Amino acid sequence: MKFRVGVVGVSGYAGLELIKLIASHPAMEFAAAMDAAEVGEKPLADMHPRLRGISGLVTFSPEASRIKGLELDTVFLCTPDKASYDLVPKMLSLGIRVIDFSGAFRLKDVESYSSWYGFQHASPELLREAVYGLPEWNAKAIASARLIANPGCYPTSVALALLPLIRAGMLEIGSHIISDSKSGVTGAGRGVKPEIMFSEVAESFRPYNPIMHRHAPEMCQELGWDLNNFTFVPHLLPVNRGILSSIYVCFHQPVSLAELEAEYSRRYSGRPFVRILGGLRLPELRAVQYTNFCDIGFRLTDKGRRGLIFSAIDNLGKGASSQAVQNFNLMHGLPEHAGLL
Amino acid sequence: MKFRVGVVGVSGYAGLELIKLIASHPAMEFAAAMDAAEVGEKPLADMHPRLRGISGLVTFSPEASRIKGLELDTVFLCTPDKASYDLVPKMLSLGIRVIDFSGAFRLKDVESYSSWYGFQHASPELLREAVYGLPEWNAKAIASARLIANPGCYPTSVALALLPLIRAGMLEIGSHIISDSKSGVTGAGRGVKPEIMFSEVAESFRPYNPIMHRHAPEMCQELGWDLNNFTFVPHLLPVNRGILSSIYVCFHQPVSLAELEAEYSRRYSGRPFVRILGGLRLPELRAVQYTNFCDIGFRLTDKGRRGLIFSAIDNLGKGASSQAVQNFNLMHGLPEHAGLL
Amino acid sequence: MKFRVGVVGVSGYAGLELIKLIASHPAMEFAAAMDAAEVGEKPLADMHPRLRGISGLVTFSPEASRIKGLELDTVFLCTPDKASYDLVPKMLSLGIRVIDFSGAFRLKDVESYSSWYGFQHASPELLREAVYGLPEWNAKAIASARLIANPGCYPTSVALALLPLIRAGMLEIGSHIISDSKSGVTGAGRGVKPEIMFSEVAESFRPYNPIMHRHAPEMCQELGWDLNNFTFVPHLLPVNRGILSSIYVCFHQPVSLAELEAEYSRRYSGRPFVRILGGLRLPELRAVQYTNFCDIGFRLTDKGRRGLIFSAIDNLGKGASSQAVQNFNLMHGLPEHAGLL
Amino acid sequence: MKFRVGVVGVSGYAGLELIKLIASHPAMEFAAAMDAAEVGEKPLADMHPRLRGISGLVTFSPEASRIKGLELDTVFLCTPDKASYDLVPKMLSLGIRVIDFSGAFRLKDVESYSSWYGFQHASPELLREAVYGLPEWNAKAIASARLIANPGCYPTSVALALLPLIRAGMLEIGSHIISDSKSGVTGAGRGVKPEIMFSEVAESFRPYNPIMHRHAPEMCQELGWDLNNFTFVPHLLPVNRGILSSIYVCFHQPVSLAELEAEYSRRYSGRPFVRILGGLRLPELRAVQYTNFCDIGFRLTDKGRRGLIFSAIDNLGKGASSQAVQNFNLMHGLPEHAGLL
Repeated sequence: MKFRVGVVGVSGYAGLELIKLIASHPAMEFAAAMDAAEVGEKPLADMHPRLRGISGLVTFSPEASRIKGLELDTVFLCTPDKASYDLVPKMLSLGIRVIDFSGAFRLKDVESYSSWYGFQHASPELLREAVYGLPEWNAKAIASARLIANPGCYPTSVALALLPLIRAGMLEIGSHIISDSKSGVTGAGRGVKPEIMFSEVAESFRPYNPIMHRHAPEMCQELGWDLNNFTFVPHLLPVNRGILSSIYVCFHQPVSLAELEAEYSRRYSGRPFVRILGGLRLPELRAVQYTNFCDIGFRLTDKGRRGLIFSAIDNLGKGASSQAVQNFNLMHGLPEHAGLL
Repeated sequence: MKFRVGVVGVSGYAGLELIKLIASHPAMEFAAAMDAAEVGEKPLADMHPRLRGISGLVTFSPEASRIKGLELDTVFLCTPDKASYDLVPKMLSLGIRVIDFSGAFRLKDVESYSSWYGFQHASPELLREAVYGLPEWNAKAIASARLIANPGCYPTSVALALLPLIRAGMLEIGSHIISDSKSGVTGAGRGVKPEIMFSEVAESFRPYNPIMHRHAPEMCQELGWDLNNFTFVPHLLPVNRGILSSIYVCFHQPVSLAELEAEYSRRYSGRPFVRILGGLRLPELRAVQYTNFCDIGFRLTDKGRRGLIFSAIDNLGKGASSQAVQNFNLMHGLPEHAGLL
Repeated sequence: MKFRVGVVGVSGYAGLELIKLIASHPAMEFAAAMDAAEVGEKPLADMHPRLRGISGLVTFSPEASRIKGLELDTVFLCTPDKASYDLVPKMLSLGIRVIDFSGAFRLKDVESYSSWYGFQHASPELLREAVYGLPEWNAKAIASARLIANPGCYPTSVALALLPLIRAGMLEIGSHIISDSKSGVTGAGRGVKPEIMFSEVAESFRPYNPIMHRHAPEMCQELGWDLNNFTFVPHLLPVNRGILSSIYVCFHQPVSLAELEAEYSRRYSGRPFVRILGGLRLPELRAVQYTNFCDIGFRLTDKGRRGLIFSAIDNLGKGASSQAVQNFNLMHGLPEHAGLL
Repeated sequence: MKFRVGVVGVSGYAGLELIKLIASHPAMEFAAAMDAAEVGEKPLADMHPRLRGISGLVTFSPEASRIKGLELDTVFLCTPDKASYDLVPKMLSLGIRVIDFSGAFRLKDVESYSSWYGFQHASPELLREAVYGLPEWNAKAIASARLIANPGCYPTSVALALLPLIRAGMLEIGSHIISDSKSGVTGAGRGVKPEIMFSEVAESFRPYNPIMHRHAPEMCQELGWDLNNFTFVPHLLPVNRGILSSIYVCFHQPVSLAELEAEYSRRYSGRPFVRILGGLRLPELRAVQYTNFCDIGFRLTDKGRRGLIFSAIDNLGKGASSQAVQNFNLMHGLPEHAGLL
C-alpha cells in the first residue's frame, strides 16, 4: 500500500530534492505537485530539467477546492514562513497531515514571531500541537503527530551535536556556546538575489547575519540553552550543498575522548543516521552530501575542559528533505530508513 | 604628465577591472566615476569592497553639465549597447575621446543593429568613423581615432586566432569555420539573472545561444568571412573569468605545424600580448587570467588539411578592460604595454 | 532472489559510485569488495567516508583461491586496462560473468592495442566474444553475453548522439565529424597527479590530448566512421562530474529540426535513459548528474546542411557505473531500469 | 636605482606570486631564480605558463659558488622549513639580506622546533636576531634587519585582528580565545598530495589539524597569550586563495562597537594595508584576493562582554608574498606601499 502525498513549493531546491526522494520511496505515491499561484500550471520537468522523463506531473496552486478530491494522506510544505503559516490550518482542516519545512511552527513562544520572523502569530494552540521533527530525539511524539515542524538546516546540525552533551549534564551551566557554521548556497533558496550570483560567491567566503540569524532562537529552544549564552555565526561556502558546524563548548568537569565517544555512541545507538567518528576522523561535507547522515566528530583542549564538536549534514538532505521523509516514516509506522539508504 | 580619464558604468565587473588598471597606470588620472542615474551618488568602495582604501571617488550620472568642467581627455564607456549609443555623440561633442565597451559602434552595417541588437541605429557616419580596437591589427587607425569600438570578448579570442590564417590566404575559400567557445560567468555581466545564480552554474556546464549570439556577425565582419560559413557556439563555464575558444578550420592545402607556427610568429612578431605556444603546449585559462595576454596553440589533423586552433584570454582583461587600456596607450603615443605588465 | 556480485577496484570513484548503486539495487547482493594487492585488506568505509554505516565489507585482492568459494554470479572490474586484461580470463574461467570498465576488451582489432593502449593483446577470441555494452544499441547481444566491455565515458556521450544519424544514413559520406567534448575531473580517476590538483584545475579550463585520445578509435569503431574523418578534442572542466559533447556534423541533404527530432525520437522510443530535448532546450550537466540519463539536443545551421548535436551524461553514471548496472539488468532478464530511477 | 634580488623556491605558488610582484616593483631587479637541485635548470615559463613572455630567467640551485658573483642585495626564501634553516646562514654569510617565508626562524624558543617542526634547531642566536616581519607592529626592527621571518598566513590573519585588543588590555586575562580559520587550497602548497586533489576538495569542506597546527604556537608567541588558553582550528575551503578567520574573545569589561572601532582605527591609523570595516560591513575573501590588504570587522554579543572579530587576507598576498615585499620596502627605506597598490 502506498500513501498519497502532495508537495507545495515544488519549484525550489528542497522541493526538487523531496520529489526525487518520493520517486524512489517504497510507500509513497506522488499525487500532487503544487506551487504558488504566480508560478501557474507548469510541467514539473520545465522547472527542473533533471525531472524530464521521471515525472509528468503539472503543478497547480494549493487551493482547497482542488485538493479536496485528491485524497492526500500527507502534504509537505516547502514554502516560505508566511505561506506555511496560512496553509497549515487549511491542510489540517482537510484532514491532511502536514510536514512543514518553514519556521512558522517551530518556535513555541508566540511572541518570538514578531521579532524574529516579522509577522504576528495567532495560533498558539497549533504551536503547542506542532512536533519539532528531529527524529533522533522526538521519535515518539512524531509517530502520533498531525503537524511536524521540520527543523531548520543549521539547527539540525547544531542540535544533533549538542543535545547528547546537554542532556547528559556535561556542559558547564551558564557557560558560553559558540557555533561557527558554514553552509552551501542552496541554503539561501532558489530566489534571485544579487549576493548569491555565481561571480559574487565563487572563489569567495564570508560570514553573514552573525548573532542575529533566526535559527539562533530555534537552536536555543531545542537545546534549552539561554540565548545570551549562545553565539551563532553562519558563513556562506562556495559549494552547492552541505553544512559544517564547528561548535565550541566548556565542560562541567574535564572529560576524556573515550568518555565523549561513549556518551555519543550511547545516545545514538540504534539511530541509523547519526555517525560518530570518534577521536580519529573528522566530518567533511563530501561524506554526507546526498545522504540523510549527520557525521559528528570531536577534539578536546584545555586539558579536557573544553570541547570542539564538529558536525556535517547535507542542508537539503538531513537539513530538509530527507529528514522530512524520515519524519514521514515514523508518522506512518514504516522503518525509519525507508527510501533513505 | 597624466591624462584625465573618466569611466561610465563603474558598477559592473569590467568597470571594476578598468578602475584597478587606471589606478596603476603611469599616465592616467582617474578624474570621474560615473554610472546610470538610478545608481545615484555613491562611494565607489560601497559598490566594490575591493576598492576600500584605494579610491575615494563618488559616482555621479554622466550629464553634460557635470562633465564639462572636468577637462576629461578620454572617457571609457562600460555601458550597455543602448546607453553607449546615446552617450557617444554627447561625449564626442564635448571634445572627449571615447573608448566604448559596448557593441553600439562595432558593426559597420547600420541595418544589422535592428536584427542583432534590437534598436535602430541612426549614426552611419559614426559607425564609419569608429575604429575597431583590436590593437594587433588596427594599431595605426587606433592611434588617430576619436572613437574606439572596443571588441567583444568572444570576438577578440576568435579574431586573434583566425586573422593570421585568413590574411595569409591559408584557409579554403568557402569552407566552414566552427568556433566552440567557453566563457566564465563575469562575461554575463553583474546584472541579476536566475540562470547565473551560484547554484545554477556551479558544478554545471551548458551551451547557450548557439549560432544566434550577436558576437557572430561581429566576428565575421572582422574576419571578412561569410556568416553562412561560420558556426559560433558559446558555452557557460563555472569559473569567474576567462574565455577559451576551440576553433576548427580547413586549409586551402595541407600545412605542417612548422609552417603554422612560422606564420603566427611572423604576424605577431613584436606584438607583446599574443603568445604563440607552438605545437607542444596548449592554452589554458589560468595562464591568462588577470593579464592582457592572448595565448594561441594549435594541432593538425586529416594530414594537415584541417587545423584546431585554441586561444585563451581573460574576458575582463584582453576581452574588455586591459584591451581598452592598450587602445588608450596607442591613442596617446604611449608604449603599448604601459600599465599592463 | 538476489545475484551475488563482486567489484574489483573499489577504491576509485567509479567503484564508489557502483557500490552505492549495488546497495540500492533490488536484485544484487554485494558479496565481495576487491582491490589491488597493494591496497591491502581495509574496511570500505576507510577508503570512502561516505560509506560509513552503509557497508561493513573489507577489501581483499582478487585471487582465484579467495574468489572460488564466494559463488559470485557477476564481477564488475573497475580496474586499469592492463589489470582488466589479466583478470578477465581468470574470472571467466571461474564461471563468473564479467562487466569490465576498462578499454581492454573494447576494440575489435587486436593490433590497435599496441598503438593506443601500450600493451600487446593476445586474446583475439575474447575481443570477438566481448559485447560492447551500449544497451540502447546492443541490447540483444548484451542479454546473452559472458563478457561486457562497458563503454568509455566520452564514447558513450558521442555514440548515443551520432548513431541515430549514421544508421539512418543522414550524414554526408566521407564528411568530417568534430566532437568538442568537456569532462569533469573524476574522469581522470582517483590517482594522484599534479595536473588534477585543486589549485591547477579550479577556476581554469583547458583542452588536453586533442586528436590522440584513445577514446577516438573506440568511437570510430562503434560509429563505423573513418578515424581520418573524425576529430575528437577533450577538455577538462572544473567540476567533479559530467561530460558535455558538442558535435558538429554535415548532412547528406538539408534536414529540418522536425525531421531530426522525429528520427531521434523514433530510434530512442522505449529507451528509458535517452531524453530528446528537441529544438527548444539544450543539455546541461546539472540535469544529468547522479543519473543514468543521456540528454540530447540539437540545432541546425547552413540552411540545414550542418548540425550541432549536444549530449550530456554523468561520466560516473551513464559513462561508467550506472550503465554497467543497466547492462547487468539486461544480462539477467531484469527490467532495464531496475535500481536506476 | 634598483636592488638586485633573488628568489629561492620559484616553483611554488608563493614563488610565482612573488615573481609577479617583483616584475612590477619600481625598485627591484629580478636577478636570480633558484629552486631545489632536483628541479634542475629550467626556464621559469615552463614551471609557470603565466610567465611566458614576461620572464626569460632560467632556474638554478642555490649554491654559494653560483650566487657569489651575482651581487644580490636581498634573497627571498620560499622554501620548506628545513631548507630555509640550511640556507639562511649561507646567504647571510655572503652578505645578502634574507626574507624567509618558512617557519624556521619564527619561533624564539629553540626547543619548540623539535616538537612542532620535527627538527633540532641549533642557531639560537639567529632566532634572536630574526625579526618577525609583521610590518604594522614591528616596522622599526624590520627597517634595520638582516633576517626577516616572514609571518605564516594564518598567524598574520589572527595577529592583525587580535593585537590591538591585547595591547590595549581589553581582553580578559586568562580567558580563552578561539580562532576558527578557513583557508584556500594554495595554502597547502604546490606539492602533490591526495587530499588536495580537485575531486577531494571541490564541493567539500572540512576542518583539519585542529589544535595541533604549528601555526598555533607562532600566534601565541606574537600575541603573548598562553597556548593553553588558545584554540586554533583551520579548515580547508574549496577556493584557490584567501584566509578568513572568525575569532571569539572575552573582554575585560563590556565594550561598545564605537569603542572597538575607535581602538582599531587608532592602532592602524596611517597603516595603509589594514582596513577597519566598523560595525556595518563584514570581511569577505573577494575583497582582499590579489591584494596586500587585511580587512577587519567585528560584532558584539553577551551585552558587550564578548566579541567576534573577523579578518580576511589573501594567503599568498598579505599572508606571504606581498607582505614580504612590504617588509622589503621597510628594509630599504622605500615607501611602505611601493609596488603594492
